[in-house]
Amino acid sequence: MTYFRSNIDAMAGYVPGEQPQGGQFIKLNTNENPYPASPAVRQAIEETSRRGLQKYPDPMAGEFRRRAAEIFGVQPDWILCGNGSDDVLTIATRAFVGQGHLLRLPYPSYVLYKTLARIQGARSQEIPFRADWSLGEEFGASGDDLRLVLLPNPNSPSGTLVPPEQVLELAQRLPCPLLVDEAYVDFADTNCLELVARCEKILVSRSLSKSYALAGLRFGFVVAQPQIIAGLTKVKDSYNCDALSIAAATAAVDDQKWLAENRSKILATRRRLVAGMRELGFTTVDSQANFTWNTHSGQPVRPLYERLKQDRILVRYMDYPGWGDGLRISVGTDQQIDACLERLGAIV
Amino acid sequence: MTYFRSNIDAMAGYVPGEQPQGGQFIKLNTNENPYPASPAVRQAIEETSRRGLQKYPDPMAGEFRRRAAEIFGVQPDWILCGNGSDDVLTIATRAFVGQGHLLRLPYPSYVLYKTLARIQGARSQEIPFRADWSLGEEFGASGDDLRLVLLPNPNSPSGTLVPPEQVLELAQRLPCPLLVDEAYVDFADTNCLELVARCEKILVSRSLSKSYALAGLRFGFVVAQPQIIAGLTKVKDSYNCDALSIAAATAAVDDQKWLAENRSKILATRRRLVAGMRELGFTTVDSQANFTWNTHSGQPVRPLYERLKQDRILVRYMDYPGWGDGLRISVGTDQQIDACLERLGAIV
Repeated sequence: MTYFRSNIDAMAGYVPGEQPQGGQFIKLNTNENPYPASPAVRQAIEETSRRGLQKYPDPMAGEFRRRAAEIFGVQPDWILCGNGSDDVLTIATRAFVGQGHLLRLPYPSYVLYKTLARIQGARSQEIPFRADWSLGEEFGASGDDLRLVLLPNPNSPSGTLVPPEQVLELAQRLPCPLLVDEAYVDFADTNCLELVARCEKILVSRSLSKSYALAGLRFGFVVAQPQIIAGLTKVKDSYNCDALSIAAATAAVDDQKWLAENRSKILATRRRLVAGMRELGFTTVDSQANFTWNTHSGQPVRPLYERLKQDRILVRYMDYPGWGDGLRISVGTDQQIDACLERLGAIV
Repeated sequence: MTYFRSNIDAMAGYVPGEQPQGGQFIKLNTNENPYPASPAVRQAIEETSRRGLQKYPDPMAGEFRRRAAEIFGVQPDWILCGNGSDDVLTIATRAFVGQGHLLRLPYPSYVLYKTLARIQGARSQEIPFRADWSLGEEFGASGDDLRLVLLPNPNSPSGTLVPPEQVLELAQRLPCPLLVDEAYVDFADTNCLELVARCEKILVSRSLSKSYALAGLRFGFVVAQPQIIAGLTKVKDSYNCDALSIAAATAAVDDQKWLAENRSKILATRRRLVAGMRELGFTTVDSQANFTWNTHSGQPVRPLYERLKQDRILVRYMDYPGWGDGLRISVGTDQQIDACLERLGAIV
């Protein structure tokens, strides 16, 4: 006897990347930032904790909205905060996509999107990237019951970016919202934020997990026109962001100098990683994110992942049916990347 | 042009109790604990913050599960943690209730349950409490497409409790899960936790917001049989609890001495509040929670709420169509309750 909805019973559940809670791994598998967050974050957490946590937080995280609005050049009511950008993606899917509806995503990209569709009892449609990781016209085509299109930009696992002008064209042709998931965009050369004011259908989500080094905090947000934010607000849990994360996230975005310095370090190490992988014979895509996607025409890569793991170096092995497999390697510190390259050099 | 699902467009959205972010209110409207959490909480937060937040948290909050399992006499895989018990309620509704299905709740109770049904495109059915706040047989009846029954126990706004033996009887007759929302149960004389092992259909949710004084932290959990927990896990966001809240919640449940002392203080003040309200001519229900429900046969109560608010004392005015209105007053400190009673005495 099962009490679950049939779509829930039928699905396997999304499996996030390995998060070993003990042991000393060089962890290059879930695109975490190797450096600690701005010192202002710790201070904000301690002050908030000292004031006590017995009261409910601000349901709309006003403090963050006001500061982020200034930094990103929008009004506060263009921003909705979430318990990580996963929460934002969940809210948007629940708001736009009902049973039997269709959700579109590129392939290969973030597997979670399909899980979100299944939980809604909806269908999903994967549009393959071209060989050069560009998107064809069909990504902007109408479709029966098409209610939401999700585009990770930069994409994972490729680290590639669809240029903003093309994103705008796609959105203009679509019959439904296009959510641009910019979790990695602070490591890219450009972004889609300014498109939001030009097209009601464009939503841009951001995460503090990667570029602000706060994956453990769970904080993300979405920027969209106010009438869109108002509808999404109905779907979110009343108090979806806690008092500590609101204060910490506000302190984090407030420290743009920290962000710029961190970005510089990550980009320098990314160049080192890309060059090193290519020297080892991998085909490594030029990356706009804090990871690289590496395939190898000469040998299977799964054993390489397993050998690295034995040596307590965790990278992400990904296998996309019909597309192929590869290693997604996060940009760690220079020292971590050198250790990874050295070990790979011995076994490749 | 709207892009939202029709059920989302049609709904108003749940409005949580007022959370004034500035000003000095005596805040007796959202059942927060007037005392700070265990000092161990602050220590856990500072230690976790000091270690850095750049890594993702444990997706299953194993540290909390293990400690809570010992305290509550279950196995860790009988527990699922949530970003507040609202998250747990959302997860359960999404897992069990699809479009066109039916969700049952008592009336009057927690208005959010109806909102959760609407977001799913589902219907809700309210079964009225009897005049003495007991539940009739029909609460356990079968129903077409009935997929989930939610029972706040103790209930809000009444503060009353359906005895565990009756909850078990209801669950045994139901064709679907019965989630017993025990957000306030630490202030009651009994609870339904031991029923979970006796009946697969019973889920018990708990919150750290009230009795552990951590509303600002957002942490709750549900106890159910492992096959139920496994299904719910598919629906939750991968990292729904953050590293700070996992550490803080673990420290909080670990300090059962703090809980017992806090409970004693709240119960003593509750007796003072109940006696005081009755002296002022209110009909006050005997409460098993950290609030009381107060009606008045001799005069309208809404103006009393407004006058109190002018004097910066916030209580909750609630009006249930077909049932009547009243004031729900949270148990604050003795001093806060005395101030509220004194002010009410001058205007009643």
